[in-house]
Amino acid sequence: MQIAIALYDRFTALDAVGPYETLGRIPDSETVFVAEQAGPVRTDNGQLALTAAKTFADVPHPDVVVVPGGPGQAAQMTNAALLDWIRAADATSTWTTSVCTGSLLLAAAGLLGGRRATSHWLALDELRGFGVEPTGDRVVLDGKYVTAAGVSAGIDMGLTLIGRISGDAVAQAVQLGIEYDPQPPYDAGSPQKAPAEVVDLLRSTSRFILGAEPPT
Amino acid sequence: MQIAIALYDRFTALDAVGPYETLGRIPDSETVFVAEQAGPVRTDNGQLALTAAKTFADVPHPDVVVVPGGPGQAAQMTNAALLDWIRAADATSTWTTSVCTGSLLLAAAGLLGGRRATSHWLALDELRGFGVEPTGDRVVLDGKYVTAAGVSAGIDMGLTLIGRISGDAVAQAVQLGIEYDPQPPYDAGSPQKAPAEVVDLLRSTSRFILGAEPPT
Repeated sequence: MQIAIALYDRFTALDAVGPYETLGRIPDSETVFVAEQAGPVRTDNGQLALTAAKTFADVPHPDVVVVPGGPGQAAQMTNAALLDWIRAADATSTWTTSVCTGSLLLAAAGLLGGRRATSHWLALDELRGFGVEPTGDRVVLDGKYVTAAGVSAGIDMGLTLIGRISGDAVAQAVQLGIEYDPQPPYDAGSPQKAPAEVVDLLRSTSRFILGAEPPT
Repeated sequence: MQIAIALYDRFTALDAVGPYETLGRIPDSETVFVAEQAGPVRTDNGQLALTAAKTFADVPHPDVVVVPGGPGQAAQMTNAALLDWIRAADATSTWTTSVCTGSLLLAAAGLLGGRRATSHWLALDELRGFGVEPTGDRVVLDGKYVTAAGVSAGIDMGLTLIGRISGDAVAQAVQLGIEYDPQPPYDAGSPQKAPAEVVDLLRSTSRFILGAEPPT
């Protein structure tokens, strides 16, 4: 089974690494990082690069498509090279997935019309513009389309999908292997749970999303 | 504030990316990935590389040291280049941290003697050989040393440390920014919680740890 994770300039690292660190542990699977050009691709804050091993053209028929999100997603909404690859790969994929604002790229590729999907909580409403029904669920399955909420939700998405692909025991083994027994020191991971002033801070500036300066 | 994350051959990606995606969002911080040589460094399964921007020599005095774990840790236990850098960086660091079996590298560098620390659950007992008291806690603070349990625990460690460095509101903002509201589809993330047969599977083969073939 081939899993292709798409990279593009200013993606968010954990959006890609969460699915990689879960789906990539499916026995006898191969995970390939793909991008418009092979080589290092910079993350949102510019302080890390992940290597794309192959170009989109090299990986036309993955079984699982993973599209991460991040501040760079906006610039990709009109990038035919990425959107065409997503559409073509989706035509033969078993599962087409996204993390965070990656769902907006699936939507822009025309794959989610009339479906339910999720995204980063700050971007959820943007799905409506593509005829997609947003849901605040952390992982949303609609047919072969699996979308995850913001950034860290790709881990939960990966485990959910392993359960569908390989069964509960394999998914549990992967969870135990990565010791995913989350114990966050705060309960502020969703806008419903975080203090109002923290929610307001993130609504007023994407500094913590960007890992960089607020937008001008 | 400078955060240095050490990379070495066959580290586990999420061990490094969890702290990066949390600590790296501290306002006005700089995160630098460092290794013996600058350039791409391969992860445990060989299917991904992260770029080390700098060499150890380039980053002698980070404020926060992060040492990830992974199957490659064993080969690093006698690598003077890495251990000397850890020791030297620790001499002036404010915080010295590890994820997963990275704590064994801190221990091998002589930093944890007489202290409490944690590691991946499969490696916990190995800490005793270095005069370190293992604890099954997910994040362990002992003085300026902060160790996290396996792989995904680096996210919890990062948020905990942000709270100490920048206060609760910043840590909560980062948690909300990465939408860390974990909802794993199984409750199998620790050996106390996972089904016995899943625990036995991981004890008998490190396939799910390695993301590759079982050891011979």
